[in-house]
Amino acid sequence: MYRLDDRIVALATPWGRSAIAVIRASGAGCLEALDPLFRGRKTPSSMRGYSLAHGALVDPGTGEMLDEVLLAVFRAPHSYTGEDAAEISCHGSPAGVERIMRTLRAHGFRAAEPGEFTLRAFLNGKLDLTEAEAVHEVVSARTANAHTLALHRLEGRLRARIDAIKEKIASVVAEVEVQLDYPEEDVEHPVSAHLIQEASHEVDGLLATYRVGRLYREGVRVVLAGRTNAGKSSLFNLFMREDRAIVSEVHGTTRDYLEGWISLKGVPVLLYDTAGIRDGGDPVEAEGIRRTREILSHADAVIYLVDGTEGLSEGEEALIAELGAERPLIPVWNKVDASAVLPPPEGFIPLSCRTGEGFARLEETLHRVFPEAEGGGAEVVIDSERQRDALVRCRDSLEGGLDALSRGAPLDALAVYLHDAMEALGEITGEVTREDILERIFSCFCVGK
Amino acid sequence: MYRLDDRIVALATPWGRSAIAVIRASGAGCLEALDPLFRGRKTPSSMRGYSLAHGALVDPGTGEMLDEVLLAVFRAPHSYTGEDAAEISCHGSPAGVERIMRTLRAHGFRAAEPGEFTLRAFLNGKLDLTEAEAVHEVVSARTANAHTLALHRLEGRLRARIDAIKEKIASVVAEVEVQLDYPEEDVEHPVSAHLIQEASHEVDGLLATYRVGRLYREGVRVVLAGRTNAGKSSLFNLFMREDRAIVSEVHGTTRDYLEGWISLKGVPVLLYDTAGIRDGGDPVEAEGIRRTREILSHADAVIYLVDGTEGLSEGEEALIAELGAERPLIPVWNKVDASAVLPPPEGFIPLSCRTGEGFARLEETLHRVFPEAEGGGAEVVIDSERQRDALVRCRDSLEGGLDALSRGAPLDALAVYLHDAMEALGEITGEVTREDILERIFSCFCVGK
Repeated sequence: MYRLDDRIVALATPWGRSAIAVIRASGAGCLEALDPLFRGRKTPSSMRGYSLAHGALVDPGTGEMLDEVLLAVFRAPHSYTGEDAAEISCHGSPAGVERIMRTLRAHGFRAAEPGEFTLRAFLNGKLDLTEAEAVHEVVSARTANAHTLALHRLEGRLRARIDAIKEKIASVVAEVEVQLDYPEEDVEHPVSAHLIQEASHEVDGLLATYRVGRLYREGVRVVLAGRTNAGKSSLFNLFMREDRAIVSEVHGTTRDYLEGWISLKGVPVLLYDTAGIRDGGDPVEAEGIRRTREILSHADAVIYLVDGTEGLSEGEEALIAELGAERPLIPVWNKVDASAVLPPPEGFIPLSCRTGEGFARLEETLHRVFPEAEGGGAEVVIDSERQRDALVRCRDSLEGGLDALSRGAPLDALAVYLHDAMEALGEITGEVTREDILERIFSCFCVGK
Repeated sequence: MYRLDDRIVALATPWGRSAIAVIRASGAGCLEALDPLFRGRKTPSSMRGYSLAHGALVDPGTGEMLDEVLLAVFRAPHSYTGEDAAEISCHGSPAGVERIMRTLRAHGFRAAEPGEFTLRAFLNGKLDLTEAEAVHEVVSARTANAHTLALHRLEGRLRARIDAIKEKIASVVAEVEVQLDYPEEDVEHPVSAHLIQEASHEVDGLLATYRVGRLYREGVRVVLAGRTNAGKSSLFNLFMREDRAIVSEVHGTTRDYLEGWISLKGVPVLLYDTAGIRDGGDPVEAEGIRRTREILSHADAVIYLVDGTEGLSEGEEALIAELGAERPLIPVWNKVDASAVLPPPEGFIPLSCRTGEGFARLEETLHRVFPEAEGGGAEVVIDSERQRDALVRCRDSLEGGLDALSRGAPLDALAVYLHDAMEALGEITGEVTREDILERIFSCFCVGK
């Protein structure tokens, strides 16, 4: 189902007007196929790998110039895909890109499927599966931390850890197989159970990083709640401004709230301002509560704002306790810069959205709500369910093997457990792969990657 | 006010998640400045122009890897800007791009202003001003035709035409100057008035293309009008589907209508479906008419749809006549595929949005509403007000010169006219430039260009 014998092409940069756009092409014969389309001092097929040429892209049918371009040439196996490949830098004009793509498709190239370049890189042995997955994760990273964690996987750090575990298991497998192959040798050698134990511990260690990985990959949802005029919008804006957000686009939706991504010390946070509720009046009022609850039901944490010059209203204390019973809640006493401010009750963080006083402490407190955030400095974390599932299977097989060993079961039984453990690890790095797994992995990529 | 002595950097591809993003850097010492940031088999400053290297971008302060990149090196004067320059292809991750840009800014680079790369290219003599302007126009082109016209200017075809005109004037200037410099020579040589005449004609020819250029650059607005259920939405969708639109994003706005760009045989058309009016009921009704009028006041043409199974309603004929008096109006008799359809009145185009019957004729008719569209195949058209204004001044000076000549005015007077004409042409190509003009031209560019 995956064709590797044809030439693929895709826009590798986002669709839109910009200084330049890059079109990526790959496949055997790709440079020769570009020869009639490129007019410059050299022909693409005569260029060396890792060299550039300036020229015009033309329609070979009409001779019409399509754009002035820079052509980068890569030669197998020294390219992203491992195949002959080219990158065409043209003007970032959607109309122009569309013409070029149409012309390429009419002259020997096929539009690439999402992730097909990386799939080819994997199938051609340029990347293992953990690295291939990391390509997507690098692009999708919402904060610098998430980006770094994905880069580490892209660099092969996870693969190296998996390989080290595999090596331990393999050496036990070798011991077991020698004894199974030469049963006539009377002496039973002891099996290195400690290696299985160590491998199992290391798998456990990787599994423990899954929560960290997910936190940085998916982020968390934090809802700002409180009465009208408590200052939710001011706090929302303060977060947007202060966090040096990577992707701090604010979406005004029709669903009664504003949301925006911020980076909380590297943790991606989707922050909700329940603006519509504010407009609807008192959240203690029935309809207000119903809508708050709906948004809160998806929240990982709540920041509850009280206007410190007004103090707690009737029933608000009970509401805070109730909301806080279901998920972490940080109570905040806002407007402490005002002269008429009342003393904050115990447990409330004093804050002034106007002066920023108390904001650092609020950020610190919110960050501590997610203890797995501490793992963000880790060397290697896993963040994919696929990887976690395979690790769980590996660990279970190793434990099964240890159990068999302790029960004095025959070595054949141990061998089966160890092989299962090896296979689970092989699935992670992609030595053992099924088509449906590949399809699931690569179909979520962007086109051009 | 334009600094040329520092190093600039900008994201040259659109902001967003994608396979790759390209960061552009330029300026003297730019490759040396990249040396501490790039870890690969070569240092940027040791690389040849037009060569590529694979490596890692690192933060020189922390040694932390920022991304895996491809680095393209260009050496003055063989680069876009004419300076030493580099292009960094990194993963298309906003979080990653943001980190890289921050690191570059902290290590010897300044964020480029919009158009600053092209401004440097102009100031360094890599492009004349018509070509520099064309860079922006190529990127902004809404259809393949508009793209081609802008490319022709980028290729220097307009500059070549201007140069040819300048040459003619210059040869007359030379004739005149010889006679002014040597007044003692008694014989008065006749001045080649025919060259001035020719130059003036050619300037007129270029001026005549301005309407064509504007049409392809700005496009036209076409409004779909008609009663509820006449089929406006179906026709809107048919246009969106059939036109092979380049930028056929449809914007649902809060302003009671839908709009979308389509390509009408290469002419960019912003098509409006007055959906809100439809929902508001009968357009003959007062409020409906008020809102239709508002949208229509900006329309270059109207397509008026009548449900052919219903026929014209009372007062609709008068409305059509009234609307058609103010701007081109194409009356359309829709639903001709229905068995109950009435015979179309004279002048109506029979159409079935369901089967597509009559759609080609409607497109043809709409295209003919804009006779300047025919000029879309021209070699050279101008589309900038700046260019037009300078051409008008040139033409007026040439005509003034011819008039002076016919009146037997002294040669000094002719010389002044000719110099003014030359200067006007020089402004177009940028030999004579004022800072405010440059600023106006380049400030509308995208950053990174």
